[in-house]
Amino acid sequence: MRLLELRQAVLEANLELVRHGLVLHTFGNASGLDRASGIVIIKPSGVAYDKLTPDSMVATDLDGTVLEGALRPSSDLATHLRLYRQFPAIGGVAHTHSEFATSWAQAGREIPCLGTTHADYFPGPVPLTDALAPEQIAGAYEDETGVAICALLARLEPFPPAVLVRGHGPFCWGRDAAEAAHTAAALESIAKMAFQTLRLAADAPPLATALHQRHYRRKHGKTAYYGQR
Amino acid sequence: MRLLELRQAVLEANLELVRHGLVLHTFGNASGLDRASGIVIIKPSGVAYDKLTPDSMVATDLDGTVLEGALRPSSDLATHLRLYRQFPAIGGVAHTHSEFATSWAQAGREIPCLGTTHADYFPGPVPLTDALAPEQIAGAYEDETGVAICALLARLEPFPPAVLVRGHGPFCWGRDAAEAAHTAAALESIAKMAFQTLRLAADAPPLATALHQRHYRRKHGKTAYYGQR
Amino acid sequence: MRLLELRQAVLEANLELVRHGLVLHTFGNASGLDRASGIVIIKPSGVAYDKLTPDSMVATDLDGTVLEGALRPSSDLATHLRLYRQFPAIGGVAHTHSEFATSWAQAGREIPCLGTTHADYFPGPVPLTDALAPEQIAGAYEDETGVAICALLARLEPFPPAVLVRGHGPFCWGRDAAEAAHTAAALESIAKMAFQTLRLAADAPPLATALHQRHYRRKHGKTAYYGQR
Amino acid sequence: MRLLELRQAVLEANLELVRHGLVLHTFGNASGLDRASGIVIIKPSGVAYDKLTPDSMVATDLDGTVLEGALRPSSDLATHLRLYRQFPAIGGVAHTHSEFATSWAQAGREIPCLGTTHADYFPGPVPLTDALAPEQIAGAYEDETGVAICALLARLEPFPPAVLVRGHGPFCWGRDAAEAAHTAAALESIAKMAFQTLRLAADAPPLATALHQRHYRRKHGKTAYYGQR
Repeated sequence: MRLLELRQAVLEANLELVRHGLVLHTFGNASGLDRASGIVIIKPSGVAYDKLTPDSMVATDLDGTVLEGALRPSSDLATHLRLYRQFPAIGGVAHTHSEFATSWAQAGREIPCLGTTHADYFPGPVPLTDALAPEQIAGAYEDETGVAICALLARLEPFPPAVLVRGHGPFCWGRDAAEAAHTAAALESIAKMAFQTLRLAADAPPLATALHQRHYRRKHGKTAYYGQR
Repeated sequence: MRLLELRQAVLEANLELVRHGLVLHTFGNASGLDRASGIVIIKPSGVAYDKLTPDSMVATDLDGTVLEGALRPSSDLATHLRLYRQFPAIGGVAHTHSEFATSWAQAGREIPCLGTTHADYFPGPVPLTDALAPEQIAGAYEDETGVAICALLARLEPFPPAVLVRGHGPFCWGRDAAEAAHTAAALESIAKMAFQTLRLAADAPPLATALHQRHYRRKHGKTAYYGQR
Repeated sequence: MRLLELRQAVLEANLELVRHGLVLHTFGNASGLDRASGIVIIKPSGVAYDKLTPDSMVATDLDGTVLEGALRPSSDLATHLRLYRQFPAIGGVAHTHSEFATSWAQAGREIPCLGTTHADYFPGPVPLTDALAPEQIAGAYEDETGVAICALLARLEPFPPAVLVRGHGPFCWGRDAAEAAHTAAALESIAKMAFQTLRLAADAPPLATALHQRHYRRKHGKTAYYGQR
Repeated sequence: MRLLELRQAVLEANLELVRHGLVLHTFGNASGLDRASGIVIIKPSGVAYDKLTPDSMVATDLDGTVLEGALRPSSDLATHLRLYRQFPAIGGVAHTHSEFATSWAQAGREIPCLGTTHADYFPGPVPLTDALAPEQIAGAYEDETGVAICALLARLEPFPPAVLVRGHGPFCWGRDAAEAAHTAAALESIAKMAFQTLRLAADAPPLATALHQRHYRRKHGKTAYYGQR
């Protein structure tokens, strides 16, 4: 029963990526974890979004063994699994090639915080992973990508809801797949506005620390007062 | 009865922001004022636009006390209220994080008037608020944002229909919520064209004063001849 | 009967501007001329596109006297009329504030021919009108805009299907209103691609003359072989 | 029977170009080849996409002689035919004026590989044809365009799925028309992201060779493991 709901929720999160214009063809994937059972539901690899059904979602354990489903899981599964195994608070992951966030990743630049929209989501810049070594790329590449994300996150406190994988694109997460997809859309808009801001002011300074913290704390932590509680 | 219509009108203005692509997720809010009763109707905080109904709109007085509604009002309510209290001509306010207007705000630049579309709406550049001091940010932040907007407007004559709040995004207003939302869409297009114009001509001069005034007066004041009267 | 069809055709051309994303709010207008009767049908001023019906279109003669219709004609009527009176081949006119074409107009730059899409439509650069003198702006402004367009066109052979009015935006024309609207959409795409091309190659040379002429003549004149004849 | 299916498939591929926003008006065309019979199905010239039916598609042989259909074939037919005659693996061709890919073609620049999305499709940069000589332009222009593409491809191994025709726009291909249209959409996104990446980092280096090859081989060749097999 719970897994059926998770299949539906993960399907919905994948479709939300499409509705927000974050994925073209099959360039993206969202997953969700049922932590009680340790079962992950993820998009199948290379299947068109308009062909997806709850049943076509693939179920695996936290080591990537397929438990249910005739289809192969997303080729990025191993990256998702690293995140689930390392961080107990993560219940959903979304990866896209959304065009502005990916451009920052391709440029090898973290996204500086230039406005309150960014501050509403991220406690600092949107961070960027280090480049993988050739032997990491030649080896268990998708797993190594997850290792690189985890290494980056280990240095950051508070925890950001997304990172840019250098040369590749964004990985986002949250309590569940829906929150991960929500962040993926916010990140794309933040990335677009930062891009445009630097065209208008090449040396725009980061948002003032006081303003950054005020906005971040409006939405996060014990002092949050945004939304309905 | 009148309040029911106002709820409907404010809901419609909020949805108009979505239809024009000016808001993502819940990044925006529109309100309207019934000046006779002093009642303000505003979007609830953090509620998805496709979940909004006339009933979910929140009613407050001009000091922000909630009169009706189970939901919390938009976190930007205090900014709206400053504008209503200070300027009797304002009957609606709209705030967005629309991507080009926000980029100008993040760049800390007012938008120069570079063409007649701008001149149709604004008597001068789209102005930019001063930065808030750390103690204003730490205090009644949303109210202080309204104070900063009012301080800026006090120096401007004629009155512009919108300003950029530095580092944050645009606030727009008008006779009612619909007019505020209308201006929010016009401003985004003006902001986009000014952005593009400066890419094509980094030193483009402002529109000639005679042409600016001709266009502004085609639409505003006693000599207006645009539209149906 | 013929006028009824013209009303319908002009309405359709106006809606085509909306469908192509060329107009926001009421920033644009299309008209058509029945040259036999000398009757012009044009969009009413400041009326929302989704409120337009064939009946709401305004009929005038070539001097601008309203013949039929309770509404006021577009404020740009006088510009359209100059074109109809001066050039017998013009049967339809469309004006927009489409965002890339307008950005070139605001930058005070004609659009150089950088590719075959441009060459398919224009025999040379997209030309730009001279600035109006303050007394022209203060006088019969919309008529003077038409005079400026005609003065520019008088110097050009072959005849382009559109010009940029400096600081304002594009005016386009054709055999009928539909062709004028068609050109307005093509011009916007041409303007966007020229904008992007110069970002990638600031000193990109114009398309080779032989290639320009080949493409222009594929579509125009006695040697045309594009499309169905 | 088989030709009927091919007509339907080629129509669908043409409509897919529209759905992905790659064509305006009639600026594009897709074709498919039944190699057993040597029959090519292609879009008719200058016919609006929303007027296309399976029956309006034009059937020709590999020399361009029309076999079936009252309409004239796309004016770019000769370019398609060169590709079919030269490369046995090509079963579908798509040509668009999509705005970012065309901007690179207009700028006279190949698209460097700056990220994994590019590497998923292309074994190297997106290549650019040489300029045609005036006598080639004056002669059998569309055929000469095909000759230029073939000359470029003869120098490349592995074979890319698309090239940019200098000053004109992209030509894409694949096993069938659907795959050609799929690549046209991917190329546009790749072109947009490369454009944006160079705005953020003017001297961004190409993607590391190891990462490029890993991604290319995830999707191509004997070692591919992306998708369902």
